[in-house]
Amino acid sequence: MLQPKPHNTSPTLAGLQSLVREDLARVDQVILSHIDSGVPLIPKLARHIIAAGGKRLRPALTLLCAKLCGYSGARHIHLAACVEFIHTATLLHDDVVDESALRRGNATANDIWGNKASVLVGDFLLSRAFQLMVSDGSLKVLKILSDTSAIIAQGEVLQLSTANNPETTQEQYLEVITAKTAALFSAACELGAVVSDKTDREEALRQAGLSLGIAFQIMDDALDYSASQATLGKEVGDDFREGKVTLPVILAYARSDKEERVFWKRTIEDQEMQAGDLERAIEIINKYQSIDSSIALAETYCESARAQLGNFPRSAEKDALLETIDFCTQRAY
Amino acid sequence: MLQPKPHNTSPTLAGLQSLVREDLARVDQVILSHIDSGVPLIPKLARHIIAAGGKRLRPALTLLCAKLCGYSGARHIHLAACVEFIHTATLLHDDVVDESALRRGNATANDIWGNKASVLVGDFLLSRAFQLMVSDGSLKVLKILSDTSAIIAQGEVLQLSTANNPETTQEQYLEVITAKTAALFSAACELGAVVSDKTDREEALRQAGLSLGIAFQIMDDALDYSASQATLGKEVGDDFREGKVTLPVILAYARSDKEERVFWKRTIEDQEMQAGDLERAIEIINKYQSIDSSIALAETYCESARAQLGNFPRSAEKDALLETIDFCTQRAY
Repeated sequence: MLQPKPHNTSPTLAGLQSLVREDLARVDQVILSHIDSGVPLIPKLARHIIAAGGKRLRPALTLLCAKLCGYSGARHIHLAACVEFIHTATLLHDDVVDESALRRGNATANDIWGNKASVLVGDFLLSRAFQLMVSDGSLKVLKILSDTSAIIAQGEVLQLSTANNPETTQEQYLEVITAKTAALFSAACELGAVVSDKTDREEALRQAGLSLGIAFQIMDDALDYSASQATLGKEVGDDFREGKVTLPVILAYARSDKEERVFWKRTIEDQEMQAGDLERAIEIINKYQSIDSSIALAETYCESARAQLGNFPRSAEKDALLETIDFCTQRAY
Repeated sequence: MLQPKPHNTSPTLAGLQSLVREDLARVDQVILSHIDSGVPLIPKLARHIIAAGGKRLRPALTLLCAKLCGYSGARHIHLAACVEFIHTATLLHDDVVDESALRRGNATANDIWGNKASVLVGDFLLSRAFQLMVSDGSLKVLKILSDTSAIIAQGEVLQLSTANNPETTQEQYLEVITAKTAALFSAACELGAVVSDKTDREEALRQAGLSLGIAFQIMDDALDYSASQATLGKEVGDDFREGKVTLPVILAYARSDKEERVFWKRTIEDQEMQAGDLERAIEIINKYQSIDSSIALAETYCESARAQLGNFPRSAEKDALLETIDFCTQRAY
């Protein structure tokens, strides 16, 4: 049934989506049944953020990796739901921290219900994730996801420490995104091997997920300076307005002349924004090919992710995972 | 060695403190070693909130109940640290939610480092709690504390839903404090039996902890309208200024005349505060003996807590637990 991949077509998530569609529908059922609470605000707010959660990429990776390892049970559904709960809790707290008003083109939960509710419902979702893991009953899974949860929080605090500092290094940036984003991609993929008892596949999937997650976040940060809102579903320039220091700024700042550095200091560091500043930032970023360099760096991580899959025999699942990796750097923008 | 308790002296926490002093010092060591992180802001902020955390009552209860059940191992140290981590994470998020500037007379973490850092370090501490539980390796403990963590979050959201509504009922108030406060007291006590493998003691200690926790929070809320700052370590009137609807207000509102209800609506509901409002609130609360009624209600929960201990043989630990219960309603204020 395997077809050779046609050349010259853009990679899509269609393969991934068709392989996990039914399982993902079951994950959604688990999620919906576990956000129910005697406190009506909780399911209301949780539904909003989960509906806005987009492609369900992280739980889809857990489902796909379980299939890739030949798993035929039902535990992967619950574990994928745990992964999505952790992700959603992070999103809620992120939006509070970023003071975002839009996520994927929709009003954020904190904008509608206030920061307080977002903080507390985020806590609830994280607790629900742990309750689900406890029901699953595997200490190994609990270890992976509690470690991941601690790493994510550390990454978020580290990001806070680098905010408004245009002299942040590429190494510091990679440390932040490895923790805040890639760790959960990594755990999501590793869980596919863990649930299948394929211990010899755990390391490869963990590493593949980590590299994919780094590439994904680099691209996300590049798109914040280059995507149309329709593509990305968030406002271009969010990171800039918040003084978040991401790779395009780091690369551009390193190459900037004296006058351009004054601009970065005023905008990113001092947060003194004027009309036309975002356009000027994009202009400097483009002048130094910082988006192209970002994509090139993301591509090296995609290459690492692909290499980790070398020992897996050809299968529809492997093809779908490879195409997901391709999609990361080649999606339209 | 057991002495009959002298009459007519105020109960203290001295018995509890002397019995768990050494273990509590070990708990502090575990806490300090587990808040270390490559991200310097995390231990800095975490140390601040843990130092401000006061009496360590919750972990002390775990330690005392373990002793009460004859436990002689070392696991209770780690479990007590988990309890304190969950409590501390809740405090951090509480202060963000309440927009508090003072806790126990000290500046709150959010006032010094901002709301963002408080949210994220709270997430980190909650994750650390789960990592510690995983190291301990008991799914039973994990179930108790993940359930508790979800219940606390639900209680906090419920409290948000009742804020600024002076028509909140006593039943709703009890539901809030049972979830946000008593659930952790309950888990803290139950863990003492769990760690000792005394399954026949779990229910009694869980119920004793629950009743003690309810009494504790009722008294805390009463003190917010009656304590001197020196006693309580927080500003009197915090709850009033925040529009938090606690038992003294619920009882006073129910008994208020038409003109007094206009006052409660303006202050609590509409948050239109004027000079002298706190004094007027306290005046109405005292007029209707709402503090005395609160204490009387707390005393009924203390009585329930004591009753749960009926089947435990006399011991220094039992005496200390009983005195801790007495202390709850009889501390100086």
